Amino acid sequence: MTRNVLIEQIFEKKSFLCVGLDTERAKLPIHLQNDPNGILLFNKAIIDATRDLCVAYKPNLAFYEVLGPSGMQIFKETVDYIGKNHLIIADAKRGDIGNTGRMYADAFFNTYQCDAVTVAPYMGEDSIKPFLGYDGHWAIVLALTSNPGSADFQRTIQADSDNLCLFEKVIETLNQWGTPDNLMFVVGATHPEMFGRIRELAPRHFFLVPGIGAQGGDLSEVCKYGLNEDCGLLVNATRSIIYASNGLDFAEMARAEAYLLQQEMSQLLTMEMY
Amino acid sequence: MTRNVLIEQIFEKKSFLCVGLDTERAKLPIHLQNDPNGILLFNKAIIDATRDLCVAYKPNLAFYEVLGPSGMQIFKETVDYIGKNHLIIADAKRGDIGNTGRMYADAFFNTYQCDAVTVAPYMGEDSIKPFLGYDGHWAIVLALTSNPGSADFQRTIQADSDNLCLFEKVIETLNQWGTPDNLMFVVGATHPEMFGRIRELAPRHFFLVPGIGAQGGDLSEVCKYGLNEDCGLLVNATRSIIYASNGLDFAEMARAEAYLLQQEMSQLLTMEMY
Repeated sequence: MTRNVLIEQIFEKKSFLCVGLDTERAKLPIHLQNDPNGILLFNKAIIDATRDLCVAYKPNLAFYEVLGPSGMQIFKETVDYIGKNHLIIADAKRGDIGNTGRMYADAFFNTYQCDAVTVAPYMGEDSIKPFLGYDGHWAIVLALTSNPGSADFQRTIQADSDNLCLFEKVIETLNQWGTPDNLMFVVGATHPEMFGRIRELAPRHFFLVPGIGAQGGDLSEVCKYGLNEDCGLLVNATRSIIYASNGLDFAEMARAEAYLLQQEMSQLLTMEMY
Repeated sequence: MTRNVLIEQIFEKKSFLCVGLDTERAKLPIHLQNDPNGILLFNKAIIDATRDLCVAYKPNLAFYEVLGPSGMQIFKETVDYIGKNHLIIADAKRGDIGNTGRMYADAFFNTYQCDAVTVAPYMGEDSIKPFLGYDGHWAIVLALTSNPGSADFQRTIQADSDNLCLFEKVIETLNQWGTPDNLMFVVGATHPEMFGRIRELAPRHFFLVPGIGAQGGDLSEVCKYGLNEDCGLLVNATRSIIYASNGLDFAEMARAEAYLLQQEMSQLLTMEMY
């Protein structure tokens, strides 16, 4: 999905919501837990309940890999079921030397037909460029993540780069390799105080923002400094939506949670941008 | 596989060779390229030809993921075929927030029965600790990798850590979280000048060393500073072994290449250590 189509979708739906699909058998409603097809049925129900309220889905690869080869089949069928009208983000945090990076890009963009992959920057240029060579596809590179461990290395001070933090250096460096058409950054909602600074470093790029909901991030704080004229944000919620209820009403309740976020997004888009 | 068993294996076989299994259909011998079971047959032949010459195998996940769900089945059958007498390293370069990290550890240590996983450090403590909680299993954390992109972030200078390079800070920090029994580091053979310094920072840890052969690293240079009293090195070769020939003699030629390395290792172990 190209940048223009993504922006159109956002303003049409008045939503920049991404729904995470970290689907775990133990957290399914009881009636699906014992169904061998339960995870796929759950994903399909969540997708049907939220399609018109979100612009992106983000299946988390770990939750499918743990199920063995059949889990990858569920991942594939989930992606196929989502279809072409949403940005599909393989949340895979890959990153390896050039010839291996090309295989990962081929795996997620061709084999599994995703639009975007999350990528870790530690291995540098040749680990990231393979993801930047596909029209209408995206590398979403980890900059400042939402977890406690983001303090350990991402925020260390770089003496050879004007005392930038590592995540700032990552953004500055990546901007030389990619463009706002093929590169986004992961910026956790748990660091709203940093959004202004990060927006300064990457004024036109989209940010994928995890950490709303279960991890404690605040949507309006993120938007205050993060929104740009094209919206520029994809805000992800996972557990607060997909596990809103573990009863028979799980899809209905997922929709209700997604609707609340979409309504808030609609207001924030209007306030900040018109 | 525990540290003690690994060390025993190394001194029994007089080898610290790890064979990489980055198997790609286009590079198979012609008679296997068109066989639907060709990749698994190739892996089994390579394993049979090298079993007594190496102590570890390292399948590279990208090469199996690109094949879709059936590729993960080939990965699983390859791991099963290797069995319990070699250290099996899932070269996956994973790394994600705590609850996702736990899923990745579960996937590789339980679902796929590997002994070790390569892990990227960018996301910090909660992304790495899930891999450290399994007896006889290992996180192999990226420190200084073999690729050109290792210059971009791994070698930047950390003003808040006595001007260490980032990879040095990674090693120092990781040493507080793991031990030589559950933690190794990836140190590329393409930086032999750094081995002395890295051995200083982690005197007892094993290093997984890619970059010998096709990438240009030199084994004796690596050993000069990298060997410790328990050997402390697993040196990986991939393309130079598995693609030594693309004829009917591919397994024989793979064995010949592995044998040359094992002989060199046997001498280096003797020279440095007895």
